[in-house]
Amino acid sequence: MVTLIKNGTLVTATDTFVADLWIDGPRIVRISDASERTLRRPGELREIDATGHYVFPGGIDAHTHLDMPFGGTTASDDFLTGTRAAAYGGTTTIIDFAIQQKGGTLRQALDTWHEKAEGKACIDYGFHMITTDAPPSVLKEMGDLVGEGVTSFKLFMAYPGVLMLDDQSIFRCMLRAGELGALICMHAETGLPIDVLVERALASGHTAPIYHALTRPEVAEATGTERAIALAEMAHVPVYLVHLSAQRALERVMEARDRGLPTYAETCPQYLFLDEDALRGTPDDEFAGAKYVCTPPLRPKSYQPHLWRGLRNYDLQVVSTDHCPFCMKDQKELGRDSFAKIPNGMPGIETRLHLLHEAVNEGKLSLNRFVEITSTAPAKIFGLYPRKGSLAIGADADIVVWNPQQRFSLAAENLHMRVDYAAYPDKIVTGAPAYVFSRGELVVQGNQFLGKPGRGQFLKRRTFSL
Amino acid sequence: MVTLIKNGTLVTATDTFVADLWIDGPRIVRISDASERTLRRPGELREIDATGHYVFPGGIDAHTHLDMPFGGTTASDDFLTGTRAAAYGGTTTIIDFAIQQKGGTLRQALDTWHEKAEGKACIDYGFHMITTDAPPSVLKEMGDLVGEGVTSFKLFMAYPGVLMLDDQSIFRCMLRAGELGALICMHAETGLPIDVLVERALASGHTAPIYHALTRPEVAEATGTERAIALAEMAHVPVYLVHLSAQRALERVMEARDRGLPTYAETCPQYLFLDEDALRGTPDDEFAGAKYVCTPPLRPKSYQPHLWRGLRNYDLQVVSTDHCPFCMKDQKELGRDSFAKIPNGMPGIETRLHLLHEAVNEGKLSLNRFVEITSTAPAKIFGLYPRKGSLAIGADADIVVWNPQQRFSLAAENLHMRVDYAAYPDKIVTGAPAYVFSRGELVVQGNQFLGKPGRGQFLKRRTFSL
Amino acid sequence: MVTLIKNGTLVTATDTFVADLWIDGPRIVRISDASERTLRRPGELREIDATGHYVFPGGIDAHTHLDMPFGGTTASDDFLTGTRAAAYGGTTTIIDFAIQQKGGTLRQALDTWHEKAEGKACIDYGFHMITTDAPPSVLKEMGDLVGEGVTSFKLFMAYPGVLMLDDQSIFRCMLRAGELGALICMHAETGLPIDVLVERALASGHTAPIYHALTRPEVAEATGTERAIALAEMAHVPVYLVHLSAQRALERVMEARDRGLPTYAETCPQYLFLDEDALRGTPDDEFAGAKYVCTPPLRPKSYQPHLWRGLRNYDLQVVSTDHCPFCMKDQKELGRDSFAKIPNGMPGIETRLHLLHEAVNEGKLSLNRFVEITSTAPAKIFGLYPRKGSLAIGADADIVVWNPQQRFSLAAENLHMRVDYAAYPDKIVTGAPAYVFSRGELVVQGNQFLGKPGRGQFLKRRTFSL
Amino acid sequence: MVTLIKNGTLVTATDTFVADLWIDGPRIVRISDASERTLRRPGELREIDATGHYVFPGGIDAHTHLDMPFGGTTASDDFLTGTRAAAYGGTTTIIDFAIQQKGGTLRQALDTWHEKAEGKACIDYGFHMITTDAPPSVLKEMGDLVGEGVTSFKLFMAYPGVLMLDDQSIFRCMLRAGELGALICMHAETGLPIDVLVERALASGHTAPIYHALTRPEVAEATGTERAIALAEMAHVPVYLVHLSAQRALERVMEARDRGLPTYAETCPQYLFLDEDALRGTPDDEFAGAKYVCTPPLRPKSYQPHLWRGLRNYDLQVVSTDHCPFCMKDQKELGRDSFAKIPNGMPGIETRLHLLHEAVNEGKLSLNRFVEITSTAPAKIFGLYPRKGSLAIGADADIVVWNPQQRFSLAAENLHMRVDYAAYPDKIVTGAPAYVFSRGELVVQGNQFLGKPGRGQFLKRRTFSL
Repeated sequence: MVTLIKNGTLVTATDTFVADLWIDGPRIVRISDASERTLRRPGELREIDATGHYVFPGGIDAHTHLDMPFGGTTASDDFLTGTRAAAYGGTTTIIDFAIQQKGGTLRQALDTWHEKAEGKACIDYGFHMITTDAPPSVLKEMGDLVGEGVTSFKLFMAYPGVLMLDDQSIFRCMLRAGELGALICMHAETGLPIDVLVERALASGHTAPIYHALTRPEVAEATGTERAIALAEMAHVPVYLVHLSAQRALERVMEARDRGLPTYAETCPQYLFLDEDALRGTPDDEFAGAKYVCTPPLRPKSYQPHLWRGLRNYDLQVVSTDHCPFCMKDQKELGRDSFAKIPNGMPGIETRLHLLHEAVNEGKLSLNRFVEITSTAPAKIFGLYPRKGSLAIGADADIVVWNPQQRFSLAAENLHMRVDYAAYPDKIVTGAPAYVFSRGELVVQGNQFLGKPGRGQFLKRRTFSL
Repeated sequence: MVTLIKNGTLVTATDTFVADLWIDGPRIVRISDASERTLRRPGELREIDATGHYVFPGGIDAHTHLDMPFGGTTASDDFLTGTRAAAYGGTTTIIDFAIQQKGGTLRQALDTWHEKAEGKACIDYGFHMITTDAPPSVLKEMGDLVGEGVTSFKLFMAYPGVLMLDDQSIFRCMLRAGELGALICMHAETGLPIDVLVERALASGHTAPIYHALTRPEVAEATGTERAIALAEMAHVPVYLVHLSAQRALERVMEARDRGLPTYAETCPQYLFLDEDALRGTPDDEFAGAKYVCTPPLRPKSYQPHLWRGLRNYDLQVVSTDHCPFCMKDQKELGRDSFAKIPNGMPGIETRLHLLHEAVNEGKLSLNRFVEITSTAPAKIFGLYPRKGSLAIGADADIVVWNPQQRFSLAAENLHMRVDYAAYPDKIVTGAPAYVFSRGELVVQGNQFLGKPGRGQFLKRRTFSL
Repeated sequence: MVTLIKNGTLVTATDTFVADLWIDGPRIVRISDASERTLRRPGELREIDATGHYVFPGGIDAHTHLDMPFGGTTASDDFLTGTRAAAYGGTTTIIDFAIQQKGGTLRQALDTWHEKAEGKACIDYGFHMITTDAPPSVLKEMGDLVGEGVTSFKLFMAYPGVLMLDDQSIFRCMLRAGELGALICMHAETGLPIDVLVERALASGHTAPIYHALTRPEVAEATGTERAIALAEMAHVPVYLVHLSAQRALERVMEARDRGLPTYAETCPQYLFLDEDALRGTPDDEFAGAKYVCTPPLRPKSYQPHLWRGLRNYDLQVVSTDHCPFCMKDQKELGRDSFAKIPNGMPGIETRLHLLHEAVNEGKLSLNRFVEITSTAPAKIFGLYPRKGSLAIGADADIVVWNPQQRFSLAAENLHMRVDYAAYPDKIVTGAPAYVFSRGELVVQGNQFLGKPGRGQFLKRRTFSL
Repeated sequence: MVTLIKNGTLVTATDTFVADLWIDGPRIVRISDASERTLRRPGELREIDATGHYVFPGGIDAHTHLDMPFGGTTASDDFLTGTRAAAYGGTTTIIDFAIQQKGGTLRQALDTWHEKAEGKACIDYGFHMITTDAPPSVLKEMGDLVGEGVTSFKLFMAYPGVLMLDDQSIFRCMLRAGELGALICMHAETGLPIDVLVERALASGHTAPIYHALTRPEVAEATGTERAIALAEMAHVPVYLVHLSAQRALERVMEARDRGLPTYAETCPQYLFLDEDALRGTPDDEFAGAKYVCTPPLRPKSYQPHLWRGLRNYDLQVVSTDHCPFCMKDQKELGRDSFAKIPNGMPGIETRLHLLHEAVNEGKLSLNRFVEITSTAPAKIFGLYPRKGSLAIGADADIVVWNPQQRFSLAAENLHMRVDYAAYPDKIVTGAPAYVFSRGELVVQGNQFLGKPGRGQFLKRRTFSL
């Protein structure tokens, strides 16, 4: 079927202009002037009037954790509920994380995650591989994964004993990634001293959620960031810092880029729109802060302008969500007696575009940059471009028709993530998706999901080439 | 007439994909898949096969000096020879500088420059206004000029007594520009101490061209850059640094941008591809260095990687030419006895894209960034976008079909600028325009100029809006 | 006469130890252990028991304005009242500023200031020369002054039309100073745009003292500082920034020093202990802020930790007072209708050591660094060492015996400066001079001044040699 | 016995003046003018005429490794030969390193090192404790050591499996040091990736000494330095970086100090006077480079000006030697087939003052700063001041009478360290000790050692108090 999205304002990372966009089957086939509208093939035509609307490439969320076991429980969204919520919010691609078991193979991890996604995913998806153990056999296996389109590996400097790799293993993985053209993604908080701070806080009877922030200070992220960059420099490979939250971590990225190093970083909406105070809960209920326990922790409000400036000036490349929801009931509650037992993570997969578009309204981002950081940049960094991430002829027709005038409340009742609270319950934004297409298929229309679970395809990603 | 440029690799500041591009009259009307090729209006069709070629927006050169009186002579290219040479090189828009006479009005200056261009310009053109005197009447007149599409004003910190404004006048112009939405362009070398250095060099018998560089040290540009930025910060206005050449000047721009200031800067090919040693001439002929006397002077080769890094990382936004050619004979020769009398300037309007594309070949720039710094960014900064600077539907069909395989020598015999030497006589690049369109009209085909002098239109530019 | 100051804690810029200090006539002749106390010449011996007291070199205030005409009035302290107040506070040397009249000679200025001091000065004094006009004859004259011990020249970037020199004159003075081994002191606020801001504030009806600060923003000092450093770099000479007040100005000094440039700077107590809010006056009397009008203006409190850090880390070398008092009555009141007419300046010559010793109490400075920034460093920078500035054998016995336990209120009734208000009326410090010696003569004992007006000697200073 | 050193130029970290210095028994008792010379106790008087000589406090070398087992051999100087050589060179105090065995106690280590020193040491000495293992029992034991005057602990980020501590152990040691007022000294090269580089170099057949440098790149030291500073910041303790060699490591120290952190660093003569090229050996004998294998490795010559600038500007506080000599024969030769087996270390204990005084001659350091970095600063940092490190009344009479005119060759035949080569065989300096006193005892006179082995005393150092 041919679809004509007519008279919309097409927005890419560079351009903004009014035109018609034509979709034939799964692909974009034409962008043209209204004067060309009559030049069309005979046959069925679905016409969507996008007058006054933006037409931009579907969001790519490069950092999600669906159906992930963590801290004795499992992230509450699976690949069905999570990807459906993503689509509702205008995101048409995710890259989720498969996790190697310590002592296990990467293959086992990948198989497990393929199973989690299959039959459920509502939009296209790729995988990063979290490597938690790097003996020679695993270094070798990295090559197989790259061959199957898993071209990025995430390593942890935090969570000793669970996910953390020591610097020698990190360095070996980096060298191997360099041979393979794969990209290393780094959780760069330095975990070993953090665990001592946590231990001391608990020993002093400090159990409330706010201590999650107080035991993970900015400097811990800044130094981990520096170390990640230095190891990558020694290995002559690029590195991508995930969920950068702290001003001083950003400064480390900036100085690396200023020296010409291929250093990339993402931040997340929670660091742009929420701050440390949320962890203090309410006057009546200090544990309400548990909703906002994620890692790195929320930071002082004064950091936010630096992150926004970093996004505007290309010091930060991407905004991903680190979506990793846990319900208050039965999940966050595990940490009622100790902040260290609160599962780390927040919901976010559905609200990223709403929030960032609001930043466009507020003059913090240009519309083009909004598209770039939510779609084009992750597509290019993670080997999905030009199939995803732009309005290119021949590209997958993953398209959002966005109503920039629509008022939309981010209260729980308007959202579709499987979690029992909303992160921004009182926020009302202006701007929301009117239509969302995935490979030419209309999957969301207003408040209706039209796609079929399992329709999402696994994306074999290309190696790193920036 | 409809033109189909088929099967080319369309390149914008963001995208790279194969498609057909359709031009109807002066405008781009369609970008589409080969499968859509048959869907066309009846009538004459000019088909250009761009297989294996790049198709990108025509270059915009935001810094040229055609027919400019300077130092007792006049730049050797006028609006005919200069714009024709530009077109040969793939540049389809220039922004030239009208110059207020000290004591004169801006109107007089603008009228003079309109006369210079009319009947001659082969491509579209706009004007910046060089303000050399800023009494209240001139500050008032700035508003009129903005109304006529002259929305940028260039001020000089150098050339005391000739072009220089003192800091109070600069500051008043900046405040006024802020009211008008106009952009201040700054020649930021600090001229007062430079003139003392020149005087002392000459007094010591140092007359050779190399002393042009030795009396205009990096620090003079760095401190002027800092001052320009600081005055703009005090006036709460953006500022655009022209022809940035020095590493430390770049660092000043970087620190301003890192603090969130709206600071922009261009560099020029001569600072990227030539260095100070050129000013030393040849073993036999030290005065041969006069060819390379421009301002700021050529710099040590070690600065170049910093400029390239700045271009890649968005610290520098634009590459313009500062095209201001003088023949050796009768012009540069005026300074045979004193470097201070050598007319300052070099030819460059024709070779900018060749040189920068060569940087793409060498991995110094991405293809998209090449398009951005030569066309899209100047269009946006100087109020020409979206009419110019991209491959947008509805935009002027200013288009280059570029053969990335063609070997091309930058020797004088291949070039069309009216000057009796070549700046890069031994350089052979790979990549050259095959076809150049201006508003849909084929003006260059290979080595043939097809346009008519005077066909170029004056461009009323919009105010600054980034 | 021989004086024995026994059992005190001697403090220099480096050392702290208990010993006896012996003075013979005007000079220090011995420092020795109590066990050596009996080894002494027969004859009169004045013994001072300094047990529990500090014994350190008398303060050197390198920045005072006594009897200075400014803004239609004259600084209220002359060389008698000012130097006497200095001595009360433990300062035994000042360097005041002679001021060249525009069009006048340096000689005239020096003669005038010699007259002002003669017969009045109670402590030793030197002169800097403020150069307001720099034709060749004056550049030549600079050599004569250096020969007479006036080895530093102060230039202004502020106060256009009154004191300001343009960059070319500044640069010529710097080059000349370089030949002579003289030091350039710079008032580095950039005055030309400031005057426009003042004009605009007044035009908007903003006349209150706080507008003095709001029209002289930090950036104006930062950019002037950068310019002063850059001009000095171009001239290959050292530069000394006077009364540095702003964090960003400090950063400019730091980056210069980090690049190895001979850049020096002083700050003043008012920038360390007072802040911008003082300029807002009281709820009842906004004009009370006039007391605190000095230039540069008081700054936000948040800058203070940076200045303290700079003092600790050798980024700032000296604390001088910029003592320039004006009474509220008849003087500050001149600006009741316009902040621009309030004479710029504050009293401070008497309270510098009290305030800085309080910083020692608070852990902001070490005791040794206290001595260094108040005495040793200015002595070395301004060519007075080793005659002044330390406890060296053979040096002038300018010595303070300081009681670190004495509580002392800085209220007006305890002070001796000729001004009708106190800058820190509510501040009570711990620590005050018990005895002050000048060239071996006991000039202050507790609250009694024992010296004779006119006893102070003019100091011929040596050229710059750091 | 009383000693009079008459008419010398006394030099401290601050002062330079001519005076007599009197020693009574082990202590300095008087500094006085020649006019006071007759005032003396009856009895024996040793007079030393120091006219034209400098008199300054004996050197303190805070970083030596005598009799240290390392890499299958033992440093060739023991406490007799090493301290005697130190005295020959004007150094009268050393702080050596006791080394905890992995699994052993600190007590055992301290006992072992006391035994090594006793009966042999010719000058006074203290110990740092190298902690290689930090279980709770050892953290507890740290308190005992501080009580015994071992108030600094050195930790390694390099040499995994041998000396390296992981970040958690480092952090726990830091927290404990903070409680105790002890100082952490850090070897900050990051060893884990270095070991991979070494492994890869050897696997590629790169066995020559130069690969010692190529496998320990600057970035490895820079990132370790940053990490050490960050951990100390998290623990709220000061940190002292040993043997800083790299420009970028220095920048990390500078940025920490600029942020107000209590960060200190030493460099060593080898990084100031030698460079990486020395590791390449001679054209005939590439293994001759083994003489210069120390860690961190020698660096490119271009780093040296930065280190000198750092010393001048207080960014570096101390120059120690890291004296750790190994003979070529039987020791360095162990690494003939693999640079990784060359014992790391160089001789230097004897030549530090000669070399640094030469820097004074060359204008790189002031004479006062020379005294400060070789004596006063280490005394203050390591809890020896005021007993050591200055010319204070009551201080130990550890004094050097230095002949600044004496030419002295650093060839092996003039030196007394027990090693079969000289590090600077061709260097001739101007300046050498004429007399060296230790606690009032004349231990070196010209080329004669007069002290008795074992006369040196163990120094109980105070806790950190800057």
